[in-house]
Amino acid sequence: MSNLNFGLIGTGFMGKAHAIALRAVGTVFPEVAHPELVCLVDKNATVAQQFADAWGFESASDDWIGMCRSDAIDVVDICTPNHLHMEMALTAIEAGKHVYCEKPLALTAAQARRIRSAAESASIKTAAGFNYICNPLIAAARDMIASGEIGEVHEFRGSYREDYLADPSTPYGWRCARKRAGAGALADLGSHLICMAEFLLGPIDSVLGSLTTVHDLRPDPVSGGMRTVENDDIAQALVVFERGCPGTMEISRVATGKKCGLGLEVCGVKGSIAFDQERMNELRLYRADSRPGRRGYRRILAGPAHPDYSAFCPAPGHGLGFNDLKIIEIRNLLRSIESGDEVHADFNTACRVQEICDAIETSHNGQQWIDVSSNALEQLQLSA
Amino acid sequence: MSNLNFGLIGTGFMGKAHAIALRAVGTVFPEVAHPELVCLVDKNATVAQQFADAWGFESASDDWIGMCRSDAIDVVDICTPNHLHMEMALTAIEAGKHVYCEKPLALTAAQARRIRSAAESASIKTAAGFNYICNPLIAAARDMIASGEIGEVHEFRGSYREDYLADPSTPYGWRCARKRAGAGALADLGSHLICMAEFLLGPIDSVLGSLTTVHDLRPDPVSGGMRTVENDDIAQALVVFERGCPGTMEISRVATGKKCGLGLEVCGVKGSIAFDQERMNELRLYRADSRPGRRGYRRILAGPAHPDYSAFCPAPGHGLGFNDLKIIEIRNLLRSIESGDEVHADFNTACRVQEICDAIETSHNGQQWIDVSSNALEQLQLSA
Amino acid sequence: MSNLNFGLIGTGFMGKAHAIALRAVGTVFPEVAHPELVCLVDKNATVAQQFADAWGFESASDDWIGMCRSDAIDVVDICTPNHLHMEMALTAIEAGKHVYCEKPLALTAAQARRIRSAAESASIKTAAGFNYICNPLIAAARDMIASGEIGEVHEFRGSYREDYLADPSTPYGWRCARKRAGAGALADLGSHLICMAEFLLGPIDSVLGSLTTVHDLRPDPVSGGMRTVENDDIAQALVVFERGCPGTMEISRVATGKKCGLGLEVCGVKGSIAFDQERMNELRLYRADSRPGRRGYRRILAGPAHPDYSAFCPAPGHGLGFNDLKIIEIRNLLRSIESGDEVHADFNTACRVQEICDAIETSHNGQQWIDVSSNALEQLQLSA
Amino acid sequence: MSNLNFGLIGTGFMGKAHAIALRAVGTVFPEVAHPELVCLVDKNATVAQQFADAWGFESASDDWIGMCRSDAIDVVDICTPNHLHMEMALTAIEAGKHVYCEKPLALTAAQARRIRSAAESASIKTAAGFNYICNPLIAAARDMIASGEIGEVHEFRGSYREDYLADPSTPYGWRCARKRAGAGALADLGSHLICMAEFLLGPIDSVLGSLTTVHDLRPDPVSGGMRTVENDDIAQALVVFERGCPGTMEISRVATGKKCGLGLEVCGVKGSIAFDQERMNELRLYRADSRPGRRGYRRILAGPAHPDYSAFCPAPGHGLGFNDLKIIEIRNLLRSIESGDEVHADFNTACRVQEICDAIETSHNGQQWIDVSSNALEQLQLSA
Repeated sequence: MSNLNFGLIGTGFMGKAHAIALRAVGTVFPEVAHPELVCLVDKNATVAQQFADAWGFESASDDWIGMCRSDAIDVVDICTPNHLHMEMALTAIEAGKHVYCEKPLALTAAQARRIRSAAESASIKTAAGFNYICNPLIAAARDMIASGEIGEVHEFRGSYREDYLADPSTPYGWRCARKRAGAGALADLGSHLICMAEFLLGPIDSVLGSLTTVHDLRPDPVSGGMRTVENDDIAQALVVFERGCPGTMEISRVATGKKCGLGLEVCGVKGSIAFDQERMNELRLYRADSRPGRRGYRRILAGPAHPDYSAFCPAPGHGLGFNDLKIIEIRNLLRSIESGDEVHADFNTACRVQEICDAIETSHNGQQWIDVSSNALEQLQLSA
Repeated sequence: MSNLNFGLIGTGFMGKAHAIALRAVGTVFPEVAHPELVCLVDKNATVAQQFADAWGFESASDDWIGMCRSDAIDVVDICTPNHLHMEMALTAIEAGKHVYCEKPLALTAAQARRIRSAAESASIKTAAGFNYICNPLIAAARDMIASGEIGEVHEFRGSYREDYLADPSTPYGWRCARKRAGAGALADLGSHLICMAEFLLGPIDSVLGSLTTVHDLRPDPVSGGMRTVENDDIAQALVVFERGCPGTMEISRVATGKKCGLGLEVCGVKGSIAFDQERMNELRLYRADSRPGRRGYRRILAGPAHPDYSAFCPAPGHGLGFNDLKIIEIRNLLRSIESGDEVHADFNTACRVQEICDAIETSHNGQQWIDVSSNALEQLQLSA
Repeated sequence: MSNLNFGLIGTGFMGKAHAIALRAVGTVFPEVAHPELVCLVDKNATVAQQFADAWGFESASDDWIGMCRSDAIDVVDICTPNHLHMEMALTAIEAGKHVYCEKPLALTAAQARRIRSAAESASIKTAAGFNYICNPLIAAARDMIASGEIGEVHEFRGSYREDYLADPSTPYGWRCARKRAGAGALADLGSHLICMAEFLLGPIDSVLGSLTTVHDLRPDPVSGGMRTVENDDIAQALVVFERGCPGTMEISRVATGKKCGLGLEVCGVKGSIAFDQERMNELRLYRADSRPGRRGYRRILAGPAHPDYSAFCPAPGHGLGFNDLKIIEIRNLLRSIESGDEVHADFNTACRVQEICDAIETSHNGQQWIDVSSNALEQLQLSA
Repeated sequence: MSNLNFGLIGTGFMGKAHAIALRAVGTVFPEVAHPELVCLVDKNATVAQQFADAWGFESASDDWIGMCRSDAIDVVDICTPNHLHMEMALTAIEAGKHVYCEKPLALTAAQARRIRSAAESASIKTAAGFNYICNPLIAAARDMIASGEIGEVHEFRGSYREDYLADPSTPYGWRCARKRAGAGALADLGSHLICMAEFLLGPIDSVLGSLTTVHDLRPDPVSGGMRTVENDDIAQALVVFERGCPGTMEISRVATGKKCGLGLEVCGVKGSIAFDQERMNELRLYRADSRPGRRGYRRILAGPAHPDYSAFCPAPGHGLGFNDLKIIEIRNLLRSIESGDEVHADFNTACRVQEICDAIETSHNGQQWIDVSSNALEQLQLSA
């Protein structure tokens, strides 16, 4: 396969993470071709040029539409705030480009469905930035569950908690605005957790949500006054998976002390798994079949025995980092483009995540359980 | 104060824990008088005698009513299965004895209210076996919350998970029977968690519960066949505290790998607290006001700076055990009898815990939020 | 067996720990008779009476010699500062009493050998207060090693580090005085570690020590000036066990942040064990024979599958405390008196520990390896 | 500065880690120019070409001498087995190239001194692959020590333990051969630990070592028979730093269960620091000046407040990986070449590390303390 040409939109946190991963992916995974960093887009041309130089892109632009439509581009990589995802994704899809978009896919399920629908009609591959599922230890966890190693799964406890808005003096930003972010913690962090939960345990059947905005007002750096936060700081949910397993979810951007607290506990009849993203190189596994007096949670360090780890390092316990997850994510996309197989998570998956986020909000508003089975969502959509 | 004479009913797990603590409490806490282990009761006279000899009781009996009414007894200590609590407690109260009863107080809120009502009318002191709140580190946590050390509390995450029924081949026992245990994990473990949550954060305002019986049938050691489990293996709940803080609760007796997994996370604006009963001598504290680059959860080891610890040991980090919590619990009761102050948790508290357990079940059945504020519960009771 | 009458000397930290354990041991372990708390001795008669009342002793005395020689006493329990151990132990032995003495047994190996020799000539049982080896999980660890479960052991890393003298403003006390304490951290903490190491791995063959006094001068509460510390704050040693396994020891009373940091790591060909007294209810076990990708240190929680645990509690993970180790230690002594079997650790073991402590100091002074094999020590003694 | 052209020798573990880092460094740290991956060298031309293609090098070669002398190369990057370091480094230095060499620098201190001497005479920059000191949290730890934040340091406990040769059936390899590896665990792992120790605490003054070969014979994949291991599996040492602080070192390649167990504990009068490379994104800090009851080791997660972290990720707790340390290491070299400042660790530092390794072996052989102060080593060298 010839190298793929990437055009990346965005110069923030995710823009840089993608750029680093695009540079490194071909060296880590020689089986995929080195992607070309062809064009970096920012709304400000000077900024675009500055970051293009810094990050090693061949060119810069302030015209994202032009980049999307350029023949020089094979893949459009969207790292902008949430409210821009839909228009950019649709434009790129229409131009016949493969699309790689950060999560959440859109502001609402309706938007996400428009994107999914467009993508389905086109001959392209898509990938959404749910990087945490790319962790070799999460692949191992999925295998433990799927293979029956921990027996029939009957209890799930998930959380994704950070504290970036725990301080009420932290200024109002785009993540607080409904029109720019959609939901709050639910969209930003909850989307990751939902994607992870279904990746591990299969489809969720129903949800009951409860949302809270802890700090209603924040200093507005624009006006100098206070501005009303328009979405949730905390989202809590009860869920039931289609396999019958009940679960809880705790999602928060005000969880003082938590920095990347994506946590999982999965209990089966024969064993249990626990994971904490803050210790992303450890998976804890309990096996009930050890002899009495020898049972306990094992702390398994990531190593070559876990999928993809050895591409980074042949020695166990040396540790991957956050950016390495992005490298795996991009490898998945590149492989998908080459092989024709779908990548997980693609826009179909990302759309479903969005639908569940929406359902949690709907449930909160109506104080009732919402059916999110595939059938139910299809019905819902048809009747909409 | 002259020594208090104890009559203890029950020769199981809790019976022994109480007996050990009764023996030791006066030495650990010289400010209270050594209780006298006067009479041990079991329905089987031989067993009663055997355990009385073993544990150091002066006498044994198979007549719990007689013991309750005996002039030789000051305090009746009830360590029997749940369904016996009400009759025994009422009998002891009627006889004018102080009563110390294991949790949960009763099978239902209605039963619990009968006991509470009787106790309120009598000139006695009561204590319920919610031992986990007696931990010096929990006292410290409560102080951190009450004093504002972690700021306004806005998020609670609680769990109590064990795995004693995770294995479906574990036989049917009294804990699986509605008439003997009441609820399942909710009554056995959830009652502890609810008591703890209100001890730390004040009253819960409303609950939404979801119960699951994972293993519907268990081998019946009596019939040799299978028998239907009549209560919950898992109880999950969303809660809102009266102070406005939202919370989640995860309660399970099938959480493979968890042995005494009473876990708490309390987030405030200025800091957070985390606790895990499996590491009962550690409290984790995060303070947001440390300088950047130096913030992190502290692992505080129990020590003389925490209430009651120094009575056991003058050196920090040497560790208390489960039975030591019982010693503190009994000290609380003895002090209450002497001083006239109420003990926490007394039957009033235990009754409220029961009401919240019942509300969680009711909520589960009706799939809706239930108001458990004091006012609401009073109304409910009046209308019943 | 009829109950044994105890006379206890000392009203400090260890005195109270012993008193609590003496009260509780018969209830925890019904197979041994409840010991009688007959007489409490303090050099100050008022203090003695006060503590006797508080702790539940029948009588008090300021005459330890009289108590030792009294017909009312079966067992003399010595909880005084180190420099008093020898005279008291010899007096008790001479009076034909069983002797239970806190560690270290004496100030020097020469003293310890005198005690050992006297004890060997008498028809008594002895026990030394090396309580940490009484932990059910340490018994489990010993079994893992002895049974070959972790294979041939080839690496040992031990430490016992606290911080009670880390602060240079902490006043000079008896532990700093050569004539009252003997060595410093080495005697107080190192003796525990040495006892534990030999308990687990068998005899040490040779040692090379290095001692450091970090804070040479401390405020003297008597004179108001500064006083010279006469022993080590830190003792470090290389050791080789007779089985050929090399090891290191790190002993410190100035290890800021460590409260009860008795730590062990034992590596064998097939597995490894790790233990930290600050988490005394956890043993970590690594098994190299797990399948690739599933290997990791297990965190085993103490439970009924481990020796003696179930006497305290039938449920796993509920946790023992420091004082519970004393209960097991006293049970061992009581059982030994009844059965005639030796207790571990008796004065013979305690003497050997002292000899190794002395050898580490000698090694430090001469900057060379010292042979501490049984043969060598015997030779040494003969030539002394 | 124009981009620097790299020629890399070696296609193993370290070769790939360097290649990944060379690709990514300019994007992570825009302040340095993107290095050019000009030539990859392997002794086998086909292998060289294969890896050059895979990793993104412009050309391949089986002629390392030619590469070293080529005008197209600015920096020679040596990732070969230890015994090749000297000749390659000398050749590259002679050709006037900057040199980046994996650790240990050489087989012996004599070799290392030859390299150091050559490098000093040339106008080049050097860097040695002691990547663990590049961790942002280690920079933070160094700052805590240097600034007095933990007070005068008085105790050091270091270890680097892995288990790659714990299994006696693991075949004999070049690391077991004196002529190819030099020392065993001491050279491979101990060199890292020594470098780290001096990076944090300053120069070591004296050492006393003890080496052990646990598995004397290993299967020889060449002969099919057994072959004698020629160096240490375990190296233990007592050390004293010039600042007066005593320390211990435990180095092992047979520490079953340890995968990347580089561990540090540094105690000062006012606080302590602990670090474990297996959790490389956490630094534990204890501060003795917290109020009583609130003291405990903090678990600080790596974040933007720590040097260099923010170049990878603006959000705390998201985690760096092993390869990210290599990115920082290469950034250091690039910056050094541009600025003229020395990099830490350069060949001067690497030589000193080698001298201390040699001294530990010498000490082991002579069973005595060895002076490793700068003066002493200079004397030693002069007299050699």
